[in-house]
Parts: sequence; structure tokens; C-alpha cells
Amino acid sequence: MIKKLMACTAGLLMAGAAGMAMAQVSPEDQIKYRKAGYSYMAWNMGKLKAQVIDGSVAYDQQQVVAAANTIAAIANSGMGALYGPGTEKSVGNQKTRVKPEFFSDAEGVKEVAIAFNQAANNLAKVAAEGDKDAIAKAFGQVGQSCKGCHDKYRME
Amino acid sequence: MIKKLMACTAGLLMAGAAGMAMAQVSPEDQIKYRKAGYSYMAWNMGKLKAQVIDGSVAYDQQQVVAAANTIAAIANSGMGALYGPGTEKSVGNQKTRVKPEFFSDAEGVKEVAIAFNQAANNLAKVAAEGDKDAIAKAFGQVGQSCKGCHDKYRME
Repeated sequence: MIKKLMACTAGLLMAGAAGMAMAQVSPEDQIKYRKAGYSYMAWNMGKLKAQVIDGSVAYDQQQVVAAANTIAAIANSGMGALYGPGTEKSVGNQKTRVKPEFFSDAEGVKEVAIAFNQAANNLAKVAAEGDKDAIAKAFGQVGQSCKGCHDKYRME
Repeated sequence: MIKKLMACTAGLLMAGAAGMAMAQVSPEDQIKYRKAGYSYMAWNMGKLKAQVIDGSVAYDQQQVVAAANTIAAIANSGMGALYGPGTEKSVGNQKTRVKPEFFSDAEGVKEVAIAFNQAANNLAKVAAEGDKDAIAKAFGQVGQSCKGCHDKYRME
């Protein structure tokens, strides 16, 4: 009983802290920041694609590591906090294409989020090792995890 | 003479490669991506400020490390490539506040860029060590390096 109460209190405290953290960033800015994060990852995915997949730009180990580290760091930066109350639809100048399902399907979102994080961290690890074929494979897995979320939770 | 010629050729090749890399990203998208990078760093600076400076959000070592790593990774991601030809002024839907001086003052830009990179990498290093006072100091140095560039090269 006491254990349950304590767990409950801890839960409320965490919710409170999350609420405070939220309160500092308006829904409009949350949408702006999460779009910025995805956009910056997209640029870095594009650099990897050019150097590792297409060969349209010469392979540069330092640039590949920097791009992979950036994607992993953003993936690990707690983007979930940018989907707070009021961010379910476009606000002010910020348009969002997130589907309503995203906000009701906690289990499904957790699944795609974990898949994305694991794939991004693996990409950073493999990039540091410098085996181009392995990087290409890890890049593909990140792409798949992006697509997995887009297919389920992003409007056309 | 041969040495000079080779250096010159290397220079041209590098410029060529940079040109190719550029060609893949339109000036409009370059502006979009660089703004996304700064915007995402700003969110992470805000989290550090709340947890390390203001105390408006409880200090969380894992979140602080994640935020610092994100700022450092973006700082190391080669944003210079997002200031290519045609990005000196707003293009299409992308507005930019960068001053013309940014594109003519290579030495000055190099100086603020190096200061920013060093401060960001130091912040990530210090965050991993977990000494809150040291993190506050390193955070302040990153903020100063942001301001140093904004004061010189960003319009009001």
C-alpha cells in the first residue's frame, strides 16, 4: 500500500516535472523544434546516401562519422517531449502532418521510437568502425525505421 | 613548381567535390537545413538553461548529456556546407537573416566558427563528467560563442 502510494507520488512528481518542462516551450515551438530535428536529420541522411549509397559524392570517413553522430544524437535527445498537449494539430505558423493516431497509440509509438533509436545508435557505432558495406546496411535500417513511423503516423 | 601545381589541383578537386555536394542541396534547402540545425540547438540550449542555470526544471544528468551531445554533434556536422552560393539572401519560402559580411569575411567567420566548435565540444566533455558548476560555465561559453557570431553576422 505504501509502496503503491510512493510509486503513485513518484508518478505525479514526474508528470509535474514533465509539465514544467513542457510549460517552457509553447506547442507552436514544440512543433517547430521537432520539425527542425527531423529536417536536420534528413540533411545528414542525404549526405550519407550520397557518400555511402549513390557514390555521387566521394566517401569521406570524417564526414560520414559526423553525419551518423548527428543523427544518433538527435535521436537520443528526447524528442518525445516535443509532442506535448496542444501539438496534435497545426498551431500558428507551424504546420504538422502528424496523424491523430500518434497521440492515442502509445504502444505503437514506443515500438517505432525504440526501433529508430536502436537503428540510429547502431549507425553511429558502425560508422566509427569505417566498413562502408556495414554502414550502407545500417543506413538502410535507419531509413526503414523512419519509413515505419511515417507510414503509420504521418499524413500524405 | 610541381608541388604547387599538385596543391592547386587538390584545391580544385576539393572545390569540385564541394560543388557536387552543394549541387544536391538547393540554396533554399541549404537555408532551411541550417536554420533547422540552429533551431534544434536552441531547444537543447533551453533545456540546459532550465536544468543547469535557472533550476526551473530538475537537473537530470542523462538529459543534460543528451542535450550537450546534440549541440556538439550539430556543431561538428559541417554546417559551413549550408552557406553555399545563392544562400546570401532569402530564397523562396526560406528567409535568412545572415548579413552580407558573412560571405566576404572568411577570416572572421573562421574565428567564430572555431570558437563555437571548441565551446560545444567542451560542453559535451564537461557534461559527461557531471559537475554542474563546470557545466554551467561551459554552457555560458557556448552562449558567448553563439552571441559572438550573431552580433557580427546576424541582422536584427
